Amino acid sequence: MANWPRHVVMIAGGVGGARMAEGLTRALPEGALSVIANIGDDEEFYGLRVCPDIDTLIYTLSDRIDRKQGWGVADDTVKALDILATLGAPAWMKLGDADFGLHIWRSWRLAAGDGLTEITREAARRLGARAAVLPASDDRLRTKLLTQEGWMDFQPWFVGRRCEPPVRALRYDGADSAAASPAALAAIAAADLIVFAPSNPLLSIEPILAIAGLRQAIATAHVPRIGVSPLIGGKAVKGPLARMMTGLGLGTSAAGVAERYHGLIDGFVLDAADAHESEALLARGLSVLATDILMRDPADAQRLGAELLAWASHGRKRKAAS
Amino acid sequence: MANWPRHVVMIAGGVGGARMAEGLTRALPEGALSVIANIGDDEEFYGLRVCPDIDTLIYTLSDRIDRKQGWGVADDTVKALDILATLGAPAWMKLGDADFGLHIWRSWRLAAGDGLTEITREAARRLGARAAVLPASDDRLRTKLLTQEGWMDFQPWFVGRRCEPPVRALRYDGADSAAASPAALAAIAAADLIVFAPSNPLLSIEPILAIAGLRQAIATAHVPRIGVSPLIGGKAVKGPLARMMTGLGLGTSAAGVAERYHGLIDGFVLDAADAHESEALLARGLSVLATDILMRDPADAQRLGAELLAWASHGRKRKAAS
Repeated sequence: MANWPRHVVMIAGGVGGARMAEGLTRALPEGALSVIANIGDDEEFYGLRVCPDIDTLIYTLSDRIDRKQGWGVADDTVKALDILATLGAPAWMKLGDADFGLHIWRSWRLAAGDGLTEITREAARRLGARAAVLPASDDRLRTKLLTQEGWMDFQPWFVGRRCEPPVRALRYDGADSAAASPAALAAIAAADLIVFAPSNPLLSIEPILAIAGLRQAIATAHVPRIGVSPLIGGKAVKGPLARMMTGLGLGTSAAGVAERYHGLIDGFVLDAADAHESEALLARGLSVLATDILMRDPADAQRLGAELLAWASHGRKRKAAS
Repeated sequence: MANWPRHVVMIAGGVGGARMAEGLTRALPEGALSVIANIGDDEEFYGLRVCPDIDTLIYTLSDRIDRKQGWGVADDTVKALDILATLGAPAWMKLGDADFGLHIWRSWRLAAGDGLTEITREAARRLGARAAVLPASDDRLRTKLLTQEGWMDFQPWFVGRRCEPPVRALRYDGADSAAASPAALAAIAAADLIVFAPSNPLLSIEPILAIAGLRQAIATAHVPRIGVSPLIGGKAVKGPLARMMTGLGLGTSAAGVAERYHGLIDGFVLDAADAHESEALLARGLSVLATDILMRDPADAQRLGAELLAWASHGRKRKAAS
């Protein structure tokens, strides 16, 4: 590995992306990783801007995360939320007190005219995140879900209703007009490896790819680009992905996920349990790594990260020699 | 006492006013007390509106107050503030997590266009305050202090600098254009007793009286109006009052405080230690009660409240008989 890769860009959502990012930072030199984060599930609560994926990335990468739930700050309290509930405000989004500190600060800075990229970069640095965290855009982009009750906002569906009712369609409001974050574009331009985190493609990765400038930059990058499956044996490790894909008629195969990144990836990492799907991917011209992709803890994530890097490095040398 | 007073209005600042208000609620039937609260020391922190006097009143009257410090919520934590400090924000105002819940809610409601009176009334009710708490105005009014460093905002001087440097002059920004709260005016119109809390006249009471409509309503009220001294033996029980009065050439006598309420009070309660000042007040046509006015705990406050009510009732009957 030694001199390669110097700069890795990861495209990521929240929990799964954060775990993989943490694993990669442990397998990479300091400062080598930049994570381009989904902003499609951002939401305002009580007038405060909450960016769940960005926050999960920052908390995980700074070792502040509540590892049991995968999000939020470890040992956080909910005194502010309790008062808000007593005051009659909806309180289904479990925002902790330390977490509120970040949301208050972010909202204060946004109101002062600072951009989300600058704010996020400073938060990541000050809170001690071991990677750069870059919002996909400074502009507004919101994932909306069509259900039998009509179009729903993401957080009321995801947290408020625990992923009910079933999703019939998705759209990424604002993606057409959102400008790709210049910092994210610069990270892609400087990258010598691009990794798609094992995040939900529909809810976490595609809102990022819906920004034309970002999709284009990744599509035309002349570096290894590797997807990581979020499914193991047709089931999502976490969250509603498998059920959503089934409901949308997309199947629940790892190859089906890889297909969604068509033209954007050269290789795909899937679980050993799904090794039988490798041939289909190889036939599409993708290189494939089948291994244990379940990240139970940071050691798992580090092992997976190191394995991914070694495999990508090997493939790169092989390609250079051919 | 029995049928009198049915409605009491107290004009109050924070800690001392809240203690006296709590004492009065214990000596009065439920729902009899309305407190018109100072808004001159309101401030924005991180874009959130903090109303220290209103909050101290609500927390005290709902038994949530941190009794050791006299302000803030008992057993509160400072996780949000710690994160804000880590993020580089100024953190000299010790806002606790439960406290932040109220500030977040208030700011959210203000941003939605609701008035401070309505918001405060609902907060007091939902948090269980045993008196109505009425902001003096829904409009902006801020106490500013002239020091050798120029005009300073209240909280940066009061909390940030611990009442330094010395005050050369005060002004109440916005008082000229602030409309008296209709709810406060209605409370005064319905009152059969008006009490000036033993709050700092310069920092707590006079910002309220600077609103012409409120001063006028009190000046023309045909009910007993009683001031309570904030000084004992020429010293303030709490806060910078004595030093401020000295610095402004106002002396530090209880009679000097009573003089500031000229035309607005008929009677004055001072400490037994200041009984020698009674004659001067009697000569000015005021009735005087000299008693132990130090409120060490709620029992003290209740005793003082009951004593004040009995004395006012007696004076009222004596007047009616004359």
